[in-house]
Parts: sequence; C-alpha cells; structure tokens
Amino acid sequence: MTHLSPISRAACIGGGVIGGGWIARFLLAGIDVTVFDPHPEAQRIVGEVLANAERAYGLLTNAPLPPRGQLRFCASLAEAVADAEWVQESVPERLDLKRRVLAQIDAAAPPDALLGSSTSGLKPSDLQEGLAHPERLFVAHPYNPVYLLPLVEIVGGQATAPATIARAKTVLDAIGMKGVVIAREIEAFVGDRLLEALWREALWLIKDDICDVETLDDVIRYSFGLRWAQMGLFQTYRIAGGEAGMRHFLAQFGPCLQWPWTKLTDVVDLDETLVEKIGAQSDAQAAGLSIRELERIRDENLVGIVQALKAGNGGEGWGAGRLLADFERRLQAKAEPAIAIDVEAPLALVETRVSPAWIDYNGHMTEHRYLQVFGDATDALLRLIGVDLAYVEGGHSYYTVETHLRHLGEAKLGETLRATCQILASDDKRLHLFHRLFAGPDGREIATAEHMLLHVDTHAGRATPAPAELLSRLAPLAGAHARLPAPPAAGRAVGQKRAPLAATA
Amino acid sequence: MTHLSPISRAACIGGGVIGGGWIARFLLAGIDVTVFDPHPEAQRIVGEVLANAERAYGLLTNAPLPPRGQLRFCASLAEAVADAEWVQESVPERLDLKRRVLAQIDAAAPPDALLGSSTSGLKPSDLQEGLAHPERLFVAHPYNPVYLLPLVEIVGGQATAPATIARAKTVLDAIGMKGVVIAREIEAFVGDRLLEALWREALWLIKDDICDVETLDDVIRYSFGLRWAQMGLFQTYRIAGGEAGMRHFLAQFGPCLQWPWTKLTDVVDLDETLVEKIGAQSDAQAAGLSIRELERIRDENLVGIVQALKAGNGGEGWGAGRLLADFERRLQAKAEPAIAIDVEAPLALVETRVSPAWIDYNGHMTEHRYLQVFGDATDALLRLIGVDLAYVEGGHSYYTVETHLRHLGEAKLGETLRATCQILASDDKRLHLFHRLFAGPDGREIATAEHMLLHVDTHAGRATPAPAELLSRLAPLAGAHARLPAPPAAGRAVGQKRAPLAATA
Repeated sequence: MTHLSPISRAACIGGGVIGGGWIARFLLAGIDVTVFDPHPEAQRIVGEVLANAERAYGLLTNAPLPPRGQLRFCASLAEAVADAEWVQESVPERLDLKRRVLAQIDAAAPPDALLGSSTSGLKPSDLQEGLAHPERLFVAHPYNPVYLLPLVEIVGGQATAPATIARAKTVLDAIGMKGVVIAREIEAFVGDRLLEALWREALWLIKDDICDVETLDDVIRYSFGLRWAQMGLFQTYRIAGGEAGMRHFLAQFGPCLQWPWTKLTDVVDLDETLVEKIGAQSDAQAAGLSIRELERIRDENLVGIVQALKAGNGGEGWGAGRLLADFERRLQAKAEPAIAIDVEAPLALVETRVSPAWIDYNGHMTEHRYLQVFGDATDALLRLIGVDLAYVEGGHSYYTVETHLRHLGEAKLGETLRATCQILASDDKRLHLFHRLFAGPDGREIATAEHMLLHVDTHAGRATPAPAELLSRLAPLAGAHARLPAPPAAGRAVGQKRAPLAATA
Repeated sequence: MTHLSPISRAACIGGGVIGGGWIARFLLAGIDVTVFDPHPEAQRIVGEVLANAERAYGLLTNAPLPPRGQLRFCASLAEAVADAEWVQESVPERLDLKRRVLAQIDAAAPPDALLGSSTSGLKPSDLQEGLAHPERLFVAHPYNPVYLLPLVEIVGGQATAPATIARAKTVLDAIGMKGVVIAREIEAFVGDRLLEALWREALWLIKDDICDVETLDDVIRYSFGLRWAQMGLFQTYRIAGGEAGMRHFLAQFGPCLQWPWTKLTDVVDLDETLVEKIGAQSDAQAAGLSIRELERIRDENLVGIVQALKAGNGGEGWGAGRLLADFERRLQAKAEPAIAIDVEAPLALVETRVSPAWIDYNGHMTEHRYLQVFGDATDALLRLIGVDLAYVEGGHSYYTVETHLRHLGEAKLGETLRATCQILASDDKRLHLFHRLFAGPDGREIATAEHMLLHVDTHAGRATPAPAELLSRLAPLAGAHARLPAPPAAGRAVGQKRAPLAATA
C-alpha cells in the first residue's frame, strides 16, 4: 500500500482540544504522532478527543482508512520533535509563550521539518522573530471540532518560504482537510475576523435586550446558517442578486452600509453582569443537555450535513461533501492493491458502522439501509473484477434485477457491520450472489441478501455478454466459490418456509 | 379535512423574489392568495419562484400537503386586500414608498386583518405612522429562499398589539415556518445586524487583498458555516468552552475583543473599483454556473441539509430538521381522515418524488431507495389498520422478515413515484404484501416488492398474535384483495425464471 500522505511522522506540541484534533487527523491518515504536553491530564484529554474523532470518522465514511498511525507521548519537547516532518504547535494563545515554545521546537526539530502554529490570531511574522529557520514557520489555523471541520487557514509571515506554504497545503489536502492560503497576513486572518465582527454585534444585541441567546442562535440556524454550510457570503448573494448580477447587487447594497445600524464602533464591556446574563441564558437554552451530549449531537449533525452535501450537485458533491468524496476516492485507490483475497471463503468486502441517519424511531437500523450495505458489498465485488468508474463511463455495467432479503436481527447506532459475498453462479451475462451481514463484536448474523445481476450495455439498455478480460477475473473467484457449501437460505421465495422470528423493523 | 392554517385567505402586495416566496409558502399551505404588483412581469417572476418552491417542496417532504390554495392576480391593491386575513407587504426598501403602500392597505383591508411587512431593516414604529389601525402592523422578515428557509423575524412597533404578535406567530408555525419574536425593535433587527457586521468586515478583507471572494467563501463553508446550519453562535461556543462552561469561555474571550483586529469602525467605500473587483472575482468563482444552476444546487443542498438534520438527534430531529418533522406530523394527522380507500383495487398509498440524495453517479435512483419507498408504503398500510406511533410505543409492531425485489426500470431526479399495495394473505401473526412502483406521468412500472411481515411483541422480541381490533380493520381489506388476481411475479425466488432485461443500477 502506498502512503496516503506525503509525510509519515508528525509531532504535536500541546494536546488540548485543538492539539487533540490535530493528533486525531494525523493518526487517522496513517501518520505516526509524537506528543509533548506537560499538562498532567494530557493523555486523558487527547484520548477523549481521539475517541470522538474515531467515532465521527466511523460515521462519516465507509472508505478504507489506512492503518492508524502510532501515538507516543514524550517526556520532553525535544524528544517529540526530533524526528518529525511536521511539527504543529497548539499551546495557549500568548505571544511570549508561543515564541518560547517555537524557539525550542526550532532548535530541536530537523531543519527542514514544517512548523505550523494553530494560533487563531497572532501574525506569523511576529512568531518568526528569533528563529534559526523562520522560513519553515507558518500558521495552520484549524476550526473546532478539528477532526470534522476540514478548514485550515494557511498564513505565511515575512520570512516564510513559498515552498513551505506549498508543502503544507499538499499535506493537508492529502489527509482530507481543506487548506486555504490567505494572501496577506493580518491579525486573526479571515475566519476569526468575520467571527469577531459577528460576536461584537451579538454581544450588543444581548446586552441591549434586543433578544436572548436562544433567539439569536435560532435566527442564525433557521436562516443564513443553512445557506453557509454550502455557500459563503459572496456566492449566496450572487444568487440573491438574480440575473442582474453581482455588481448590481452590490450597487444596491452599498448605501445600506452607511446607515447607522451597527454598534460595532463601540466595544461592549463584557463585565460580570453581561457574562452572568449570557451564562444564565445559555444554561436555559441547553435545556439540560450536557456538553458531552451537545458534542455528540453536533458531531452527528456535522456528519449528516457533510453526507448530504456529498450527495448534492447531482451526485458529484458540493463544498465539504465534494471534498469528502474526493478523499474517499483517493482512499479507495490507495487501498485496492492491498485487499487480501481469500478465494476459499466468502469474500469479506465491506466493513462499516451504523450511521446516525440510518436509525429509525425505534433506535434500530432502518430496513432500506440493509440493502444499502449489501449494495456496497456488490459494488466492492464488481470493482474487484474490474467494474470501476472508468468501466461504467465506458458504457457497460452490471445492473441488479432481483433481490431477496431476510432479516434475522437488529443493528444499533455505531455498531460495526461486516458483509461477506459468495458467488453462487455466473455466466457471460449473469451474476448470482449471496451476501451475509454480521453486526457487533460478536459478529451475529442479522441479514442475508440474494441478488441476480445482469451485465448490460447501458446506452442500449439491454443485457450483453461481459468482455473476456472481466470474465477472466471473475472465473477463479466463481470457481473457488462453487466448491463452498451452498447457503441453505438461497433460492427461497418469500413465505416459502416459515421465516425466523427474530427480526427487525 | 380540517385546515392546516388558522387563516385561509392571504394577500401579497409586491411579488418579487421575496413576495413570490411568501406567495408560495401560503399556497402550499392551502391558503388562497391574491396578489397585487404593477410590475409588467410580475406574473412571470411569481410563476418562476412558485415553480422553484413546488420543486423544492416535492424534494423536501413526502408528507401529504393540503390541496394548493388558489392564486389570483388583482388589478388593484384594494381588490387584492379586500377579503384578506393576512396582508404581506414586500415592496422595495424605501420608507416613503412603504408608508404610502401600507396606508393604502390599511384603508382597504378588513380592520382585523394582520398586516406584515417584509422590510429587512426599517423599524415597525416608523412604518405605523399615520395608519388607522397601527395595532395590527408588524414586521415579518423572511430570508431568501423564502420557500425553504424557515425563519421569520417577528418585530412589533410601539403601536403593535401583543395579540397581533401572537396571531402572526401562530399562523407562521402552522404553515411550517419558524417565527421568532424579537423583543425590542431596532433597525435591521437581529439577523441583518449580524449579517451587516460580517459584510463590513468581508468587504475590507477583499479591498485590502487579504483574500479573494472564493477564499473568503471557502473559509465560511468549510468551517463555521457547517456548524451554523445546526447551532448558532452561543450554543456552539458553549461546547467549545468545554466542561468549564460558558462563563469561563466568555471570561477568556473578553480580552480579545479589545484587540484592534477589525476595521469595523470605518465604513468601506464601495466605489466602482471595489464593485468591479468583487464582481470579477465572483464571476471567476461561479466557474460558468448560471444563476439558475446555482439556485438549483443551493435548493437541493438546503433540502439535503434539512433532511440530514431531520434524521439527527437520534432520529428526533434537530433545528430546521426537527421543525420539518413536526410539520410533517401535523400534515399526516390532518390528512389521514381524508384518504379515500378503494378496497376493490390495490391501495395507492404513497406518492412521492425522486429526491436529490437518492441519485447515483449514473443519474438514476439508487437501489436501496426503492426499498425505502416500498417501506413507506408498508408503513402507510400499517397506519391504516391502526399501527401508529402510539401503537408502536405500546410495545407491539409489525417487523419485515423477508423481501423480494424486482427491478424493471429506472427513475430520474424529480420524477413522481406512486406505490400500490396488495395484501396477498394474512393471519393473526403474518402479513404477506405485494407492492408495485410506478414512475413518471406515464406511470410505467419500475419495480415490485413482495414482503412478509410478522406481528411482534417488541419487548419480548418474538411473534405474537395481533389484537382483534387491528385484525378487524385488516379483514375487510384482506378479504377484498383476496378477490383480486394474484400478481404473476409473486412467490418467485431469485433466478427462478429469467429476469426481465430492462433493469436498473
């Protein structure tokens, strides 16, 4: 298996919520990570972030992730960075502290190691002062939760080499993140500039009793928040401007900016009274949900939103969903040569996990999601014999014409699922398959699926013999599977024999 | 059928993009709408918004919408408002114009008609001046696209009666929108205050060449935009603050606000040079996609995001998704008494449309979505015989134990689908069904599904006889269906007979 990422060793200095998120991103991309954080609870905190990240990734994608990197906590900063190709600094947001830590990293890390800072506001030029190798320092500013939100703002300082920016972007793109390069450094870069503007206005609205925090949050999440998950400010208003265009929209909009609407010119005094007011309103809004529960809801919603965007734009994906689809294609391409095929047993082709969107009101996996997993198993078999995207684009494919499902048990949110495939029979046009689905660590069998597929000319819309090359890949598998015992449940019609009683909704 | 909404007649004065969105919301909720707009192309523009809205609603929900209200364009404002219970003003954003139009509405509408203004910034007290019935005027500020984004800011002025606010909120909630009441009027209310703060900062970032519009949009949509589709500012940072809590987060955050990060104290000069710069960057960002194409992508993404949120929070729904789920439950409850059952033919139980998320890379409906629609048909039959949410919560349900699918054709994005159900056999525990799925205006048959269901005690996890009351509702249907011809495809095993060649992916 070739490596997913151009680097294989990263060091993380500081392992809080942000540092932990970086650690998770690196490990899940197959990169080994060394960590230095003197906080006595660093291992626990990193462990919790990592557990959240693995759960979220399990829900987010079924693509074959590389083997997880090795995680090692080090007793000193120097030990952690000694062998690193990328060092990410995520210590508290104080210039003096960051400068001191960065100087230590600079002295101990290999001179060509990339050196990223997670600062959300400090200018990289200010961080570079006094470094022996300032050319490899840059800001890599991520967003919480780092393991799910793909954005990283890449900002160079006066001494940063252009090659550093290019290398950083290459690594981030390879591990499924979205590195965007900010053209000129300013404090707070782009994202936090926008957020701070919003925050200032929001604090005034609460202080002046225009609304409470729940109303303000509702205003965001029932309106422009839904737009911003997919398009930003400018593209959204390009549409709002209609056929007249962006320039016309701006010309109309300009005068409003002169109106004395905002109180942004003043800085709100965030005194004890205002902090307490917001704190109390926030408690009421949470309605008893703990931070852990809110975090779980947030992550599952993020997974659902990204998956919805992946299905968008006519199936090509859009925004964060397109990014995920591209990442999965790369994972797929990297993984395929590594599949170990044992032709003497049903093929284990799919391993996945029950996603939040798959759950019905009973807390069980919904009926049609079983067929989705079986469909993924069929697709994996087809890829194995050469029916990939290029083959389909060439005008041929296998179509499923008939399916028989048996439900034998239930699956719950987050449970692992494993599907196996046995080829019952095949000829030049037909492919007769039997899948079994197993759930949980005990691998209990929860469903079976029998499928008949036909090889078709997709333009003509009719069955046609598969080419010899494809059949030659199918033959050894089909031949070996012909020697396996036939599943007793194959060939049955609905109601032919009394169905088992343990069943699912 | 009882009415979904407490009002049955609305008038819309001004039928642009916003007015058209209101018209669509009212009509789709079964409310008759009269329109006055002197613009020569008003009918075309409203027609286009309405077509977008119907398409979006078709993708958004399968719940039974009430019969669409009647739309009538009027030759005068007085005629349009004469009989209205809610008049919505959506004319251009100029105080003098709005005052003149509101005075005309006030004089011609019934004195107890609600009078909402779509203004995005003017204070309702300023709009009330000189009205004979100022107590019924309020701001009802929606967000584009009005037919998909649920938020309406409800703002009262000095003369607005509290009962007006309450009535407005009741109507909006009934038609599936999210009315939030802003406690005190200020110019631009809450949403546009926040947006304007962001806009000011964004324009400086572009003018100062910190980034281009695509980078700025990417910063939003790959990071906090994904958060804001589900939670707003405060709830998001409540989580970011971790177990230390909101007050701790604010205490840490406060000092940053004092830093001289933003240029909000200055108003950017949106001169020709800046307009042209943004216009050119926006053209590049659109990458050749027309406004119509971007609009379609946006709407399909919004549908996908809302549906993802509907599946969130363990199936209970979250934010805009919870709102949709609640709305659908009300639609379901209203519609059921109206279902006309013809027991002498297979039951037509489901009418839906192929949603964007159902499409595979070939542009066809994905395999497992067929089973989803068949599952909906099974659920509709079960509701008909009394297996509703309360019944399931009581500890009994029907579980599907076996399914046989045949694929006969394909379905494309947006096509209508209709599923019929024939009861093949039943006893006190078993229910044997045969569904057929028809697509498009020609109603071509694209799939069939044969199912075996068992009545189960869900706590004990085993089959148990259904209660007499339920069986007595099933009996007349099953008896009538027993006299229908048996479908030739029933009772077949996979591969038993050569499958038809026209098939689907």
